[in-house]
Amino acid sequence: MTELILTTFDWVPDMPRGYVRDIRVRWALEEAGLPYRVESVPFRARDTGHFSNQPFGQVPWLTIGETSIFESGAILFHLGEHSDTLMPTEPGARSEVIKWLFAALNSVEAASLPWSIFIFSGDNTETPGRKHLDGFLDARLQHMEQVLAGCEWLAGTFSVADIAMADVLRLVARFDGLARYPTCRDYVARAVDRPAFMKAYSDQMAHFAAADKDNL
Amino acid sequence: MTELILTTFDWVPDMPRGYVRDIRVRWALEEAGLPYRVESVPFRARDTGHFSNQPFGQVPWLTIGETSIFESGAILFHLGEHSDTLMPTEPGARSEVIKWLFAALNSVEAASLPWSIFIFSGDNTETPGRKHLDGFLDARLQHMEQVLAGCEWLAGTFSVADIAMADVLRLVARFDGLARYPTCRDYVARAVDRPAFMKAYSDQMAHFAAADKDNL
Repeated sequence: MTELILTTFDWVPDMPRGYVRDIRVRWALEEAGLPYRVESVPFRARDTGHFSNQPFGQVPWLTIGETSIFESGAILFHLGEHSDTLMPTEPGARSEVIKWLFAALNSVEAASLPWSIFIFSGDNTETPGRKHLDGFLDARLQHMEQVLAGCEWLAGTFSVADIAMADVLRLVARFDGLARYPTCRDYVARAVDRPAFMKAYSDQMAHFAAADKDNL
Repeated sequence: MTELILTTFDWVPDMPRGYVRDIRVRWALEEAGLPYRVESVPFRARDTGHFSNQPFGQVPWLTIGETSIFESGAILFHLGEHSDTLMPTEPGARSEVIKWLFAALNSVEAASLPWSIFIFSGDNTETPGRKHLDGFLDARLQHMEQVLAGCEWLAGTFSVADIAMADVLRLVARFDGLARYPTCRDYVARAVDRPAFMKAYSDQMAHFAAADKDNL
């Protein structure tokens, strides 16, 4: 079997630890029981080799033999195509997973990521654009509250769609953005209670803690 | 062959016309030469039938027999799986398309959509969060400028990834956000010059113009 190599940063500041997107890939690999090896690239000096694998200079990417895949959504989808645990092959169920995978990364994260940028910047200025942006996220969460009231996992059984959606909502929860959304909170709690998530999380934390020791 | 039904709003205000996301689906269907029929749902009163097809109360969705697909990314991917014109079947080329499809809708649109919300709100207040957000989009566009300098289309030949990316960048261009990015501008110009885009665009404009006449 071809070796799977997950590439992430060698070090990141404390703030993003536990939230670096390699966790989505680690989580999926743990769910599927697929062994993998971690390689690191410098956080501070990103070279052309980095950009040739990840054109935005970010992480993660996954290397499978000659193939290198960037974008956490694309990696999740790829792993889903190779593991029934992550994405069923039955066409109807597969279609549900794909819809919700895109929904997590486009409809929800396009609203939550900019919101978190404002929170992270300690910016509380109420401007018209900011009001629109907050309303945009609120509308998305209200709809997710309805959706999640009717199901344990988005596509029936747990799938890569839940890895993406729960990870997106987890960041909202971190900044207390789910206070008015108990069903979303419960969903995140269910997701992070999975052994595969816990392993992925502690592995990511250990990876960056080791970098501190090495004085990187 | 199963009939394809594209559902969009019956009417929208002038501002979003030509940019409603059904254009991505129309464009792909035209590129693939697939016939389709358009159905409308009320823009002003969105009922449970609407939400059962599109959980965020938006458009478009595509109905194929018993299957209903929402999220423009998921629809593009579905059509790609059924048309070599939209997504090659050769694994390496297919993987490239999938990476860039997710990149357009997550890495780029998660930066451009909130930026456009601020522009649309006429909000010019320079707050710390806003500076971060503008920097976020700028970084993405700088990287896209490098990527597009080396290729005509993202995955070698034209694909659904270009439909998504060009449509995302087209909205940035509309608000003059590509002024410092000539390679991105040229890419958008190449994309909208395709007969399939032009047909899709004029069909969307005609659809909403007809609604004006009907006094919806």
